[in-house]
Amino acid sequence: MTLATTARTGPAAPGRGLDALFAPRAVAVVGASDDQSKYGNWISVQALRMSGERPVHLVNRRGGPVLGRPAYRSLAEVPGPVDLVVIAVPAAGFEAAVEEALAAGARAIVGITAGFGELGADGKAREAALAERVRRAGAVLLGPNCLGVLDSTSGLYLASNPLPAGPVGLISQSGNMALELSAFLTGRGLGFSRFASLGNQADLNAADLVRAYAAHDGTELIAVYCEDFGDGRAFVAAASGAVAAGKPVVLLTVGSSAASVRGAKSHTGALTSDTSVIDAACRAAGVDRVHSPREMADLLAALHRYGPAPARRVAVLADGGGHASVACDVAEACGLSVPEFAPATADALRAGLPPSAGVGNPVDLAGAGEQDIASFTRTLDTLLADPGTDSVLVTGYFGGYGRYGEELAAREIATARDMGASVRRHGRPVVVHTMCADSPAADELRAQGVPVFAAVEDAARTLGMLARRTAAGVDAPRPIGAAAPVDTSQPTPAAPAGEPQPGTDAPRPVPAAATDAPRPAPAAATDAPRPAPAAATDTPRPAPAAPPVTDDGYWSARELIRSAGVAFPPAHLVRTAAEAAAAARAIGGPVVLKALGLLHKSDSGGVALGLRDEDAVRAAHADMARRLDPPGFCVEAMADLGGGVELIVGVRRDARFGPVAMVGLGGVATEVLRDVVFALAPVAPAHARTILGELRAAALLRGVRGRPAVDLDALAAAVATVTEVAAAHPEIAELEVNPLLATADGCLGLDARIVLEH
Amino acid sequence: MTLATTARTGPAAPGRGLDALFAPRAVAVVGASDDQSKYGNWISVQALRMSGERPVHLVNRRGGPVLGRPAYRSLAEVPGPVDLVVIAVPAAGFEAAVEEALAAGARAIVGITAGFGELGADGKAREAALAERVRRAGAVLLGPNCLGVLDSTSGLYLASNPLPAGPVGLISQSGNMALELSAFLTGRGLGFSRFASLGNQADLNAADLVRAYAAHDGTELIAVYCEDFGDGRAFVAAASGAVAAGKPVVLLTVGSSAASVRGAKSHTGALTSDTSVIDAACRAAGVDRVHSPREMADLLAALHRYGPAPARRVAVLADGGGHASVACDVAEACGLSVPEFAPATADALRAGLPPSAGVGNPVDLAGAGEQDIASFTRTLDTLLADPGTDSVLVTGYFGGYGRYGEELAAREIATARDMGASVRRHGRPVVVHTMCADSPAADELRAQGVPVFAAVEDAARTLGMLARRTAAGVDAPRPIGAAAPVDTSQPTPAAPAGEPQPGTDAPRPVPAAATDAPRPAPAAATDAPRPAPAAATDTPRPAPAAPPVTDDGYWSARELIRSAGVAFPPAHLVRTAAEAAAAARAIGGPVVLKALGLLHKSDSGGVALGLRDEDAVRAAHADMARRLDPPGFCVEAMADLGGGVELIVGVRRDARFGPVAMVGLGGVATEVLRDVVFALAPVAPAHARTILGELRAAALLRGVRGRPAVDLDALAAAVATVTEVAAAHPEIAELEVNPLLATADGCLGLDARIVLEH
Repeated sequence: MTLATTARTGPAAPGRGLDALFAPRAVAVVGASDDQSKYGNWISVQALRMSGERPVHLVNRRGGPVLGRPAYRSLAEVPGPVDLVVIAVPAAGFEAAVEEALAAGARAIVGITAGFGELGADGKAREAALAERVRRAGAVLLGPNCLGVLDSTSGLYLASNPLPAGPVGLISQSGNMALELSAFLTGRGLGFSRFASLGNQADLNAADLVRAYAAHDGTELIAVYCEDFGDGRAFVAAASGAVAAGKPVVLLTVGSSAASVRGAKSHTGALTSDTSVIDAACRAAGVDRVHSPREMADLLAALHRYGPAPARRVAVLADGGGHASVACDVAEACGLSVPEFAPATADALRAGLPPSAGVGNPVDLAGAGEQDIASFTRTLDTLLADPGTDSVLVTGYFGGYGRYGEELAAREIATARDMGASVRRHGRPVVVHTMCADSPAADELRAQGVPVFAAVEDAARTLGMLARRTAAGVDAPRPIGAAAPVDTSQPTPAAPAGEPQPGTDAPRPVPAAATDAPRPAPAAATDAPRPAPAAATDTPRPAPAAPPVTDDGYWSARELIRSAGVAFPPAHLVRTAAEAAAAARAIGGPVVLKALGLLHKSDSGGVALGLRDEDAVRAAHADMARRLDPPGFCVEAMADLGGGVELIVGVRRDARFGPVAMVGLGGVATEVLRDVVFALAPVAPAHARTILGELRAAALLRGVRGRPAVDLDALAAAVATVTEVAAAHPEIAELEVNPLLATADGCLGLDARIVLEH
Repeated sequence: MTLATTARTGPAAPGRGLDALFAPRAVAVVGASDDQSKYGNWISVQALRMSGERPVHLVNRRGGPVLGRPAYRSLAEVPGPVDLVVIAVPAAGFEAAVEEALAAGARAIVGITAGFGELGADGKAREAALAERVRRAGAVLLGPNCLGVLDSTSGLYLASNPLPAGPVGLISQSGNMALELSAFLTGRGLGFSRFASLGNQADLNAADLVRAYAAHDGTELIAVYCEDFGDGRAFVAAASGAVAAGKPVVLLTVGSSAASVRGAKSHTGALTSDTSVIDAACRAAGVDRVHSPREMADLLAALHRYGPAPARRVAVLADGGGHASVACDVAEACGLSVPEFAPATADALRAGLPPSAGVGNPVDLAGAGEQDIASFTRTLDTLLADPGTDSVLVTGYFGGYGRYGEELAAREIATARDMGASVRRHGRPVVVHTMCADSPAADELRAQGVPVFAAVEDAARTLGMLARRTAAGVDAPRPIGAAAPVDTSQPTPAAPAGEPQPGTDAPRPVPAAATDAPRPAPAAATDAPRPAPAAATDTPRPAPAAPPVTDDGYWSARELIRSAGVAFPPAHLVRTAAEAAAAARAIGGPVVLKALGLLHKSDSGGVALGLRDEDAVRAAHADMARRLDPPGFCVEAMADLGGGVELIVGVRRDARFGPVAMVGLGGVATEVLRDVVFALAPVAPAHARTILGELRAAALLRGVRGRPAVDLDALAAAVATVTEVAAAHPEIAELEVNPLLATADGCLGLDARIVLEH
């Protein structure tokens, strides 16, 4: 599937109908019901909560009272304008209900009715036609197959369940996920400004809603549960905009396991993207990705409290050695660091605590809490004043001291209040883990806005999520260009039916047209070392003239990438043994012979390395011609691999997020070690440097144990170039340079391949 | 620090005094107090709970009533025998109190008093002397610096806090950790058979207590929080015994971060081991390692319920697509697999569920739960009957259906009961996550013994912990041999004060004795290819006769390992350029020249590879002699690295756990990729194969993309040999072969080094 099949007819006009969706003047529920097992009942119950705010009309084709109120038989009977219509009728009547709604002047339609795209292609076509109809009428459609909409800032209650009010705008493709998040957020003192159930996203999609929430004053944080991003780049753009507007976007999605993809398909017929693609998109957009509803609630609560404060360098404040050490281990496992304090901080701690206390990081109050519960506040204050500390993780028994008597209980609660004041004063993230999380003092901490956790790993993970978001060097990709399709030098003949297609691994037959005529001399195709860069950029070289073999992909890939500025070794395109020998002579030194027309040349024995003389070239040619009968060969100068690092730079086109770059260790290591990093393509050179630095093997690039560092500027430029080329050619499904040899002197592509969209 | 400094005088005789510790006939608390801020008060309060079980005597040197009961001024005044004495007096009076206790006939002493080993070397010496004194008297000492002891099966309450009764035997070096675990276990319906606070382990240590718990009928599971394992091999042996006796040992420890090591030191002066060493020890012992108190409680509860059942292949049962997919992703992240069902299972599911349900794995009941709540039981039953399913993760809304009416609430509780029965019938692990974890139906599941979680990741992690323990191929190490110290061919002269020591990186000066006499001809030191293995094993070769240079380590290491059976390339030990050239001529083909006396030869430019003729050898010799002035050289046949995989096999002696083996990718990759696995040494060949298979790069060993597989039997044998050699020589601190070249034809050591204990 390509982007084209999922692209919207056009972006939603900003604000198109979304006022009617979130703050309608009048509402009708079509399919209102007294049957408590039906959504039409649940939504009507909620809708009636807002009767004081705006007219609410219930419509049921049998008429008669519903929920004790008169109901209309059709929208046509409803008096006055209705700008928002909720439709919860059987699927067979959905289209008619939509027409009625538009006729009644609806600017927004919420489709509760299921039975469309989630069932397959027919349903997809049906809902696409409906969405087009709604758009033509200038309205918007949420759903179908959704659970409704809610806006606590405009008093709109049209979801199947009530949700508490608060600062979080929620966009969800699952009703139960919304309910679970609601339960977790309630426990953290938070609720929702808006909730929109995405359903099948026939018209309005996650990106549209993120954009709307970003512009909504009552929404401070945006939470998204989404399985199918549709136009993923639109989502990235919308989320980037929200983040830039100071509204964090926290995303829970699925697809990191094959099973969850199966689950998502059974759910809404969604097309999920690979989890590494999602990660790349989140990074590009500045979106915080979480992996469970509880993580989502913890991060939202921490962001609501502390905003974008750094958190990585954590001071651990414990009242026992065991808790101190366990917290340190758990914190580091969550990506935090627990650095030693500056001497001044240790001195200040020592001055304020008894000699039994540990005054390094972690701080162990030992018995100081029992002796004077206010030690917690004083110590916290000292830690928050330390310039090397970003955040504090309190762990242990706080909240339990009050069990020893009423006076101590009162002093513990007062200490909790003072700790809250200290946190506010310093504005740095503080989280508290206590084994007494149900205590009055813990409740007081919560009332002060300090996140309290019953398990230390949840506390540390929350700080870790804050730390990761500030550590991430977000570097948005440049827009995808709209260059012309690849010129593969000759038109690729359509493969006969039954023939292997590009993308399969079998050698392809030589096209008839390519075998019955003498080929031009190899010299014409020679790829002599290019002139100095200045000349090359001023005067783009013409495409090689009519090379003898064109559809194998390797030469096209090589030429495409080389002409964009990534160097390859000198090479000749040849057919016969004599031509190959002549090419080797022309190149001089050891050469490589590659059989063309094979997607995986090495695996098929289609590459012979280090051929030192013409005899060796002829022998290799004879062997490959016999075994593989390729449509042609390439003779290349043999590169010196010593001292270099072999990398892979590839770009694959994701159905949702478009071209996605992969950079990693190349050659055999690619598949064995899977040391790769992903990013949305094209990747700017600065971002290329960043992701290269994230490889496990980054030390190899920087030089290690006497090996020189590679030319990182040249490498980053080459990565950027390959990703630009791929992004600029939508007809390329996959483009890969592997290996890309990085040395202290620059970069050299040693092999390349293209897979075209089909 | 070496093992010797921490070794016990001798192992505790089985049962020595432990009956008196856990089931005493009469108890005295010395230092009993009315002051509620003192341990002597807390323990006395607990002690008085057992007055009905056995005589409890309170002793306070000021006399007078304590806690409303008469107290004695000294133990001498106490009537009748006292076999257990708790001492909670100031440190200055501790020794005297111990003498009094022994004089009173105590067989067990619990030292609450702090102020010994945790404060430094003086305190350590003091407590060691005390422990020796106690042992000589045939008694045992728990602590000092501990929080007491408890045995709910004998009605013994001598800990600072009450703890609920149950099947878990707890051994803890932290009081607060014990309290937190107690709180988590209580929430899971579990409690303690025994609790022993380790304190400073002056006499009784974790191993002694594990052994005692393994033999205790009332203890079904053993939980250990320990920072300092003392004699780690004794702990491994004790834990292995417990596991073999069917009592799982679950360990929480610290030291995976530098900060936690600092914390542990401030706490009890503990010496922690590297986290990879702990992992290796846990694996050898069959111990389950956890990373937080909540994880510990979750695993203990699951083990108590399900025992050692496999769990890896999980069926996900959800009542919504979002929960279905999120659970799959989280499950796979926890090391579980969510495989597709066999067609028969899918058919059975389809027959029992409405068409809207998803009947693959994950199962999505969709609306089936609303239509018929018993769908949960029927579906669970079908899944548990599937032969390809080890375990079931239920996730979503169960427990929430009852909110829709009393009748449904009753039916939901009945369904929970039926689900419990199904779980019991099938005996396979089932865990339930529900967003309604506080509901009556969730409580009913808990009452049925089914673990219920409020967050899906906690449910999945618990199954993951069960899965990991059954997947782990536990392969206990063979006992460490007691071979003679390494014969390094000549005694190593003691380095003069101020000289670099072995283990530092600087070249060492040539010992005077090695420079002033002519050396024997290199031929005498020649390491010609060895005879066929049979002959070599029948007739051990004599050590090389008086090689000209002996203390560099490389030659000693090489000879030690080679004589144990690991092949190295032919080599000669030489000094002069003429000797080097002669050696190269004798070897034939390209050679390597290595400068001796350098710990890291490559980093210092002390290795010249691929020298093709005598001139090259002479040039390299001249260069190294000028730059490095080494005490000697080694000329070796150059191995062909093509097609082979370079590995590292090393053994390091941990202060607690003795020799620990590391196996991984060798050469530059060792430090860059850190693809290594650890195991207690010696490693048996079968276990060596297992851990080699766990390397990320294992595919390289098995052959990939046309590369041949290496000879895994030979490689495993070589790993076993190196680890045996290191384990047999306690005077070796580190032994390493790097690279060890593994090819399809066998193994070849290409470099080696030794660091001796100092």
